[in-house]
Amino acid sequence: MKQVSQPQGTRDFTADTIYKRDYIFQTIRQVFERHGFEPLETPAMENLDTLMGKYGEEGDQLIFKILNNGLDNPAKQEKARQDFEKILEGKNSSTITERALKYDLTIPFARFVAMHHHRLTFPFKRYQMQPVWRADRPQKGRYREFYQCDADIVGSYSLLNEVDLALIYATVFKQLQLKVSICINHRKLLNALANSCLVPNEVSIITNAIDKLDKIGIEKVKALLSEKGFSETAIQTTENYLAISGNNTEKIGQLKKMFAQDQEGLTGIADLEFILSRLPADIPLIVDPSLARGLNYYTGTIFEVKAIDVKMGSIGGGGRYDDLTGLFGVPGIPGVGISFGVDRIFDVMESLQLFNEDLQYGTRLLFFHTGDEETKTILPIMQLLREKEIACELYQEPVKFEKQFKYAEKKRIPFIAIIGSQEMAGQTCVIKHLVSGKQQTIPQNEIASYLANF
Amino acid sequence: MKQVSQPQGTRDFTADTIYKRDYIFQTIRQVFERHGFEPLETPAMENLDTLMGKYGEEGDQLIFKILNNGLDNPAKQEKARQDFEKILEGKNSSTITERALKYDLTIPFARFVAMHHHRLTFPFKRYQMQPVWRADRPQKGRYREFYQCDADIVGSYSLLNEVDLALIYATVFKQLQLKVSICINHRKLLNALANSCLVPNEVSIITNAIDKLDKIGIEKVKALLSEKGFSETAIQTTENYLAISGNNTEKIGQLKKMFAQDQEGLTGIADLEFILSRLPADIPLIVDPSLARGLNYYTGTIFEVKAIDVKMGSIGGGGRYDDLTGLFGVPGIPGVGISFGVDRIFDVMESLQLFNEDLQYGTRLLFFHTGDEETKTILPIMQLLREKEIACELYQEPVKFEKQFKYAEKKRIPFIAIIGSQEMAGQTCVIKHLVSGKQQTIPQNEIASYLANF
Repeated sequence: MKQVSQPQGTRDFTADTIYKRDYIFQTIRQVFERHGFEPLETPAMENLDTLMGKYGEEGDQLIFKILNNGLDNPAKQEKARQDFEKILEGKNSSTITERALKYDLTIPFARFVAMHHHRLTFPFKRYQMQPVWRADRPQKGRYREFYQCDADIVGSYSLLNEVDLALIYATVFKQLQLKVSICINHRKLLNALANSCLVPNEVSIITNAIDKLDKIGIEKVKALLSEKGFSETAIQTTENYLAISGNNTEKIGQLKKMFAQDQEGLTGIADLEFILSRLPADIPLIVDPSLARGLNYYTGTIFEVKAIDVKMGSIGGGGRYDDLTGLFGVPGIPGVGISFGVDRIFDVMESLQLFNEDLQYGTRLLFFHTGDEETKTILPIMQLLREKEIACELYQEPVKFEKQFKYAEKKRIPFIAIIGSQEMAGQTCVIKHLVSGKQQTIPQNEIASYLANF
Repeated sequence: MKQVSQPQGTRDFTADTIYKRDYIFQTIRQVFERHGFEPLETPAMENLDTLMGKYGEEGDQLIFKILNNGLDNPAKQEKARQDFEKILEGKNSSTITERALKYDLTIPFARFVAMHHHRLTFPFKRYQMQPVWRADRPQKGRYREFYQCDADIVGSYSLLNEVDLALIYATVFKQLQLKVSICINHRKLLNALANSCLVPNEVSIITNAIDKLDKIGIEKVKALLSEKGFSETAIQTTENYLAISGNNTEKIGQLKKMFAQDQEGLTGIADLEFILSRLPADIPLIVDPSLARGLNYYTGTIFEVKAIDVKMGSIGGGGRYDDLTGLFGVPGIPGVGISFGVDRIFDVMESLQLFNEDLQYGTRLLFFHTGDEETKTILPIMQLLREKEIACELYQEPVKFEKQFKYAEKKRIPFIAIIGSQEMAGQTCVIKHLVSGKQQTIPQNEIASYLANF
């Protein structure tokens, strides 16, 4: 028989991992809620129409489409056969596939806002923590099913929203005890750079090149721009821009000089100054003019978070966009949002051993199976312990103690309890702490307090 | 432009519903964990091979299959075109579809156990709370995406597991304050009935008919059996069996008389007696010989839970099975499990108004936007309040108070706070409780205690 497995690029999560991931989710969720964000959950599947054309050609190809059911219906077969040719041409046909798995959380959120904009209270602050699916080639750290964790505020142009989101990033990572840099930039600075280079409509060439700076270095970035026909002056301007350095105040000063004549650039700088002025000094926000993340989508501020002590891609990102729902026929709703990369945050925290051992919530006390009659005494004791929030179980089978000890060890249950005929008579219980080996006979009604004080 | 919507049979969940559903999930999760069950999460998609043939012909047709990506690859087109004919015949082809959305939690769990049985600690107790997908025709209360919530113990024949699961049912519904009957029956009683009717191999005819008893009544059940060729005596025997009534002791007594000569029947009765003997008297467990749920799957005990105060189908069910993983080449792993129907539990609790109003966790305090300068004072105050677990927000735009009041009302935020120039000077804050209209000026550093004592 063929070895069964889960699909490539997907994962089963067992208790250890779930408890750690839940700790991350709970931390983020709590901070979102303290900042007044409401939860939203959308279905795993969306109508294919809703998703197609939203992620660029490459993205569209990574959407998992769902085959319509009932294609073997004789009345539909001929149409299905014909329409399958469209699939073979890389097009879609609603005869073959009407639905698809969601590719991110933003488009389903936009679809939700477009459907309900008449009755939502704006500014609308929502968070969403759900899996998404992408038919990417699986590789280390890249999965076909993974969680996204987004917070967005829509229907407001106020920069106080950016302040809110920067505080959320800072608070979450502080609570996770993960040292990060939260980088911020502004699309208008990149536009101003394109203006300075005299290529106002080619900002995407600049940002594509800048995006590679970390990987290929400044010389290769310059070569890239040269290939694209950038003048010597334009290349020099870009190099000067990328050389901007110092603390935030110094960087802002250099940017002001550089774009003294560019209204768009000055607006971007003023936005960054406002955000910085409203944040406490201990927030690790870093102005980073080279940040060009997801440019075609964002129209204002841009955020990116990186872990300081581990070399890993970004563990968070976001920014401001002008028009969330225009594609769904509801124009004029701007917004700003951030996302947490939970899978990477998990990996970083594992490698830095930041998870507390207390996250192991499993069974705390295993009652040994000492005989059929004894179970009548043990079961009610367990119910009382559970009411006192103590997770406990009774070994199911009347087997040798050795086997029951092994079960406790493998499940890392810290305490075992034995109530045999002798203990029944004396209403006592033998409790043993497996790590220390400490063993004590105590009254049956003192088990909970014994564990609490251990 | 076409009106956008989510796919038919699926739902968006907003804050109100999510908080209530989470309350149900959290209650169940906590009870599972107190009983020593560990969480497991499996991917949304499984290999199609894993799922096909496990749910009967009807079930197979309701599986959502995922179209393979890259069918427009010229190298694959011809094979895809040929293989599409299989789809049109109602068969599968891995060229067209290799994966599918999971249809329940049991088969993915079986797949997991089959993959890892060498290193799992048996008896293995796991719980799983995840969505599943079925291409059912959507109708009231029936969705294409819905949650299942299962707990199973595998690798143990002990009836103490049944005791454990009955306690879990009783505890969860007690905590939810939902009055239920937990019905129990035994497959061996149904087999014994088939023996008594002299149709030992036709137990499924009996159980199919019995399953309809609630809907069609005893006379039509008898007519159904007659149509199937049952003798007068067999029909009378079935009627006698279904007429068994009284309290549990009385029912057990009647069953013992009826099956005094049937070894299988007596074993079933002994199992039920054992389970009843180990449960506290206040557990609402009811022996129900007419319970025939999912017969082809279960081999021992059968559970079903129904709400008492609302007419609705079962809100929970489960039972014992002999062989979880045999279909995946790993025979000899028996188990027993239960499931909670969270969507129906939600509906029942809504209709009985059992959700506590405290489940509204949204923002507790809205700071009005009183001016740009004031935000510098307000933002640090909000950070301190959030550290004290108070969810608060600052209205983003400098608009008229009327609009800010409206926002607070629509979001059902109970308190608003105003810090204007006067309050800045005196380090005070005006707090108003919107429901009562009570308004008071307090020191800024006493906001948290004021809210706590309100």
